[in-house]
Amino acid sequence: MPIIEMHLLTGRTVAQKRGVAAAITEAVCAQLGVQPQQVRILITEHGGEDFSVAGQTAAMRAEAAAATLPTKDPA
Amino acid sequence: MPIIEMHLLTGRTVAQKRGVAAAITEAVCAQLGVQPQQVRILITEHGGEDFSVAGQTAAMRAEAAAATLPTKDPA
Amino acid sequence: MPIIEMHLLTGRTVAQKRGVAAAITEAVCAQLGVQPQQVRILITEHGGEDFSVAGQTAAMRAEAAAATLPTKDPA
Amino acid sequence: MPIIEMHLLTGRTVAQKRGVAAAITEAVCAQLGVQPQQVRILITEHGGEDFSVAGQTAAMRAEAAAATLPTKDPA
Amino acid sequence: MPIIEMHLLTGRTVAQKRGVAAAITEAVCAQLGVQPQQVRILITEHGGEDFSVAGQTAAMRAEAAAATLPTKDPA
Amino acid sequence: MPIIEMHLLTGRTVAQKRGVAAAITEAVCAQLGVQPQQVRILITEHGGEDFSVAGQTAAMRAEAAAATLPTKDPA
Repeated sequence: MPIIEMHLLTGRTVAQKRGVAAAITEAVCAQLGVQPQQVRILITEHGGEDFSVAGQTAAMRAEAAAATLPTKDPA
Repeated sequence: MPIIEMHLLTGRTVAQKRGVAAAITEAVCAQLGVQPQQVRILITEHGGEDFSVAGQTAAMRAEAAAATLPTKDPA
Repeated sequence: MPIIEMHLLTGRTVAQKRGVAAAITEAVCAQLGVQPQQVRILITEHGGEDFSVAGQTAAMRAEAAAATLPTKDPA
Repeated sequence: MPIIEMHLLTGRTVAQKRGVAAAITEAVCAQLGVQPQQVRILITEHGGEDFSVAGQTAAMRAEAAAATLPTKDPA
Repeated sequence: MPIIEMHLLTGRTVAQKRGVAAAITEAVCAQLGVQPQQVRILITEHGGEDFSVAGQTAAMRAEAAAATLPTKDPA
Repeated sequence: MPIIEMHLLTGRTVAQKRGVAAAITEAVCAQLGVQPQQVRILITEHGGEDFSVAGQTAAMRAEAAAATLPTKDPA
């Protein structure tokens, strides 16, 4: 240990995933005094309908936010 | 918190996912006296070979159930 | 399935845990069309130092909130 | 219970998943004295960029390993 | 990987925990062709009020079962 | 999201838990471009018999390590 499972919305790039794995490992080693080899990180991704806050899925909130944007002038 | 992870077999509709997110949030707020904003729900889906009961995967049990059904009269 | 893991801060009563287990089960059955017998709920409790938002543990936020309360008149 | 969640890298065959579900169920029943019907196993799969050890994703380690292999003689 | 989290009701002995860790590791290695060193197992324990089936906590079911037992003859 | 569950062996101090919560939050915000308020971290602790590598619990490995230490000169 430490074994870390990080839940994320889908859509992160390879570079972001590689960057956050290295940064979390560094942070954990510095704070808990463990070796990098002991730190395992799992990323579990969730789509927009598979994560909700206050009963609203992320997709619902994205739709609501889009609906409040000014519609583009077609000219 | 509360943070809730719900494991489901793949195949639920968007309407079902939105409905269950709202219904669970309501149930949790009523029973635990928290605000909707505090309730986060993650859905993690599993295919038929990724869930087993008594050492039998869901896909194996579906195959066994299908095998017991009367075969259709080809006429 | 569904298998549900609910993370809570420590301190809920037996009545609350029994109430929320029944209410979530009812909500899930109604929304996903499953039988009560299929619904398993795990509660995992976390102490005040084992849950953080924005890098602040629940205990830290409780301390900060307490510090802003008017001190009682000793008379 | 027992409820078991097994995190695996993607790529296992159906036969492997069925085999490991049966073998784990047998092991758990023998050691803990529970019935097979009580044992549920969830498999959650992770891609090469979604699992890291020592800050290096599985994909990075695979790339590094491939880079050390002797290049094939084109003749 | 594999990384395995096993949820159990509280109450297992040290010998049972050691036995099941070894047996699961052996089963996983045999079925998935991984090395023992790659297999990590986490046990997360839950009390009688922290696990429910069909909306009934394990403690409720234990109480119900005890209530159906013939009461002991006090003589 | 991100929602992070970190599994640790029991025994970390309050200062370590507070430090690692802040450091992970900072690392995640920097790498994934999210706000601190979006980052929730759960710590789940495991005793020495509840974590195993290669079928050996942490407690077994600690015992084995202690057994190899030179016994203290009683004089």
